[in-house]
Amino acid sequence: MDYKEYQEYREYFVKLIDTKQLKELKDALEEINVVDLAEIIEDMDDKHMLIVFRLIPKLVGAEVFSYMETFNQLRIINSITDTELHIIIDELDFDDRIDIIEEMPANVVTKVLAKSTPEERKMINEFLRYPEDSAGSIMTIEYVHLKPDMTVKAAMEYIKKTGMDKETIYTCYVENEYKMLLGFVSLRTIVISDENLLIKDIMEEDVIFVTTTDDRELVADQFIKYGYIALPVVDSEHRLCGIITFDDIMDVVEEEATEDFHKMAAVNPSYDEYLDQTPWQLAKNRIPWLLILMISATLTSGIIDNFSYIISQYIILTMFIPMITDTGGNTGSQSSTIVIRAMATGEITLADALKVMLKEMEVGLIAGAVLATVNFLRMILFTDAGLVVSGLVSFTVLITVILSKLLGATLPMLAKRAHIDPAIMASALITTIIDSLVLIIYFLLAGWLLPLTGI
Amino acid sequence: MDYKEYQEYREYFVKLIDTKQLKELKDALEEINVVDLAEIIEDMDDKHMLIVFRLIPKLVGAEVFSYMETFNQLRIINSITDTELHIIIDELDFDDRIDIIEEMPANVVTKVLAKSTPEERKMINEFLRYPEDSAGSIMTIEYVHLKPDMTVKAAMEYIKKTGMDKETIYTCYVENEYKMLLGFVSLRTIVISDENLLIKDIMEEDVIFVTTTDDRELVADQFIKYGYIALPVVDSEHRLCGIITFDDIMDVVEEEATEDFHKMAAVNPSYDEYLDQTPWQLAKNRIPWLLILMISATLTSGIIDNFSYIISQYIILTMFIPMITDTGGNTGSQSSTIVIRAMATGEITLADALKVMLKEMEVGLIAGAVLATVNFLRMILFTDAGLVVSGLVSFTVLITVILSKLLGATLPMLAKRAHIDPAIMASALITTIIDSLVLIIYFLLAGWLLPLTGI
Repeated sequence: MDYKEYQEYREYFVKLIDTKQLKELKDALEEINVVDLAEIIEDMDDKHMLIVFRLIPKLVGAEVFSYMETFNQLRIINSITDTELHIIIDELDFDDRIDIIEEMPANVVTKVLAKSTPEERKMINEFLRYPEDSAGSIMTIEYVHLKPDMTVKAAMEYIKKTGMDKETIYTCYVENEYKMLLGFVSLRTIVISDENLLIKDIMEEDVIFVTTTDDRELVADQFIKYGYIALPVVDSEHRLCGIITFDDIMDVVEEEATEDFHKMAAVNPSYDEYLDQTPWQLAKNRIPWLLILMISATLTSGIIDNFSYIISQYIILTMFIPMITDTGGNTGSQSSTIVIRAMATGEITLADALKVMLKEMEVGLIAGAVLATVNFLRMILFTDAGLVVSGLVSFTVLITVILSKLLGATLPMLAKRAHIDPAIMASALITTIIDSLVLIIYFLLAGWLLPLTGI
Repeated sequence: MDYKEYQEYREYFVKLIDTKQLKELKDALEEINVVDLAEIIEDMDDKHMLIVFRLIPKLVGAEVFSYMETFNQLRIINSITDTELHIIIDELDFDDRIDIIEEMPANVVTKVLAKSTPEERKMINEFLRYPEDSAGSIMTIEYVHLKPDMTVKAAMEYIKKTGMDKETIYTCYVENEYKMLLGFVSLRTIVISDENLLIKDIMEEDVIFVTTTDDRELVADQFIKYGYIALPVVDSEHRLCGIITFDDIMDVVEEEATEDFHKMAAVNPSYDEYLDQTPWQLAKNRIPWLLILMISATLTSGIIDNFSYIISQYIILTMFIPMITDTGGNTGSQSSTIVIRAMATGEITLADALKVMLKEMEVGLIAGAVLATVNFLRMILFTDAGLVVSGLVSFTVLITVILSKLLGATLPMLAKRAHIDPAIMASALITTIIDSLVLIIYFLLAGWLLPLTGI
């Protein structure tokens, strides 16, 4: 469904409510996927949203609820009775319950915790202690665990009985009596195996796992690399604590890329949706870097001031300043973006640093030669800058491109080496550094090539 | 496994081969995941790679082969016998076979096709006709299809019998006699349902599908949104043609983000890995945009030339040109990056255009006021620019920031509206546009505020 269809459904449902055709509405609701349903009702007013929500069977309601934005979940919670809330909370998956506790105001959290058993409360508290964005904070405890000495038949019966409440039943984990992870077995293997075999005979012992404190970005990398439906999460003693499923990680892959986009554009990343943020919040994430970059750009003022004796005699040189600095910025940000992204996806590592630097220098030489030649011809043919100034500007372009490629590739790798996020070394910061270097080269060359008087 | 572990395994295996301990090597190989095994042997020389490859059981070998880069697959193909090649091709999944046919040189393709039955050849040809990057080109035909009148018991038996050769058995698709897609049923539902029920009674009819010609980016969006393990691919007559599984899409999500990173850095995207490309190939993807941007940046030369009568009287004004244009570029690229990414992930749509423009203008007002104030204080306190010039520069900064925010948000949305990829409206192009506008404003304000002689 796309935006327009959501709109149409929304209007249709509101019409059914306003004309009291609740039976028709109930039937219509059954046809719709929970993800779409969440999108449709999120943009309704409180009254209509609540009527629709109450018409959905409770089990489906909990699912729809889990797909809604925090803001809209809160609208629902504030309108329903405590009994209704308890039913929803009861039906929610454990990881969704944790999410709500983490994001809701204190009075709602109290209500959620009041409904939980002491056992559950203990577990919830443990979950809340995992670092933000760690594997522990996004895992779920609702997985299938099997014992090594179970027969395939017994395992299948156990899955039939408990499978409904698990996040996934397609990968089952085998633990010993101390909850240590011994291996995994896919439901496919269980289904096609002889029912008298033992789980330990058919399980895979070469199990890829993550630990509770691993960053979710690393977890995403493992999913992309191995293509599994789920990965087990273990603690420092190799005890199985939970699992993470691929569907939760798809969002992470997208969010991590968004975070890098923002960082590379000199914006402090935020987890809130754009449209949910006020101009003040948006400005708060952008001003710090703009200030840092503006102040560091004043370095260029100093450089120009320093060479003002050249400019005062050759005003024409100022004409080419933006073109030269822009070219440096563009060239550098090509290299820095490529290198930062390739490091983020694991395509290149620090071990490749020398190879990358050499390659970028060669690219700089090729691109620089092309740009300098085109610029020289353009200046000679279409301007009256003259041979010396045209040569000076074009030669500066050549040096600029080579230098920018080299710096654009090197600085992010140096940042990574120093355990600084390479993404902040992106275009903006590199542009400022390159600008200064390039201006110095430009004026030094000018001072050397052009006849000056009265110094 | 990380880079270092791969290295260690590689050296260990080479040592085992060189000392002829093939039995130990064979045992060691069994312990390693196919994905890791592919990575380990890819960096070996031909001789060692081939020995390892021949020690792996054929079924595992085909899997390892499918995880290797095209370049290395070719190295294997060129070293093994035709009989060995046929065995591998036979064991490969259908979609991997298609990939090889698409990427291998003609003589290899002939060998692959020679091994296929006429039926298979017809199907392969059909697959090759799907547009690049379409759902059709990435789907697989190895899915479980059930009939609506099957009992759960019969379905389960059918899955047991054929499940080994399917890409996934966890989502099964229900077709009528004309191959029309009627619905789907998850293996979980099959496992927990009474075995006398009919498939049509337990299947979900509200099925999310894509069509063969849909772009893979749209397919990825559907996976992220609905979190399914697989999606069915239908043709224009709603006949089921194949399925796409989540693991193939995880790569797509990452690759599409990489493509956008490259486009936004004014680099023509390439599917080849960075380290596999020669400097000439890399330069070829970067030079076109650098040329376009350099030539359009000459607009700024014209503008400065036009105002040279002001500059000649106030050389000091040149000092602030890079700082002002950089601030414009940085501010604009913040907005353009945020808007382009939010459109790519579906967070904002064109319907939100007015809201976004208004918000960015407000952000521009806030950020502009802060930056202008800081700049004014800095210039008054730490330079001898004087009140008028400091005021002029700071006011230009304010206008620059507001304008850049507005343009940075608007241009990508206009591009999308005109069905142009918004990503090319990223920082580089916007910077060039903003530079020109900002210089005009700067000099117009200067001409208006500063006393000039002899015009």
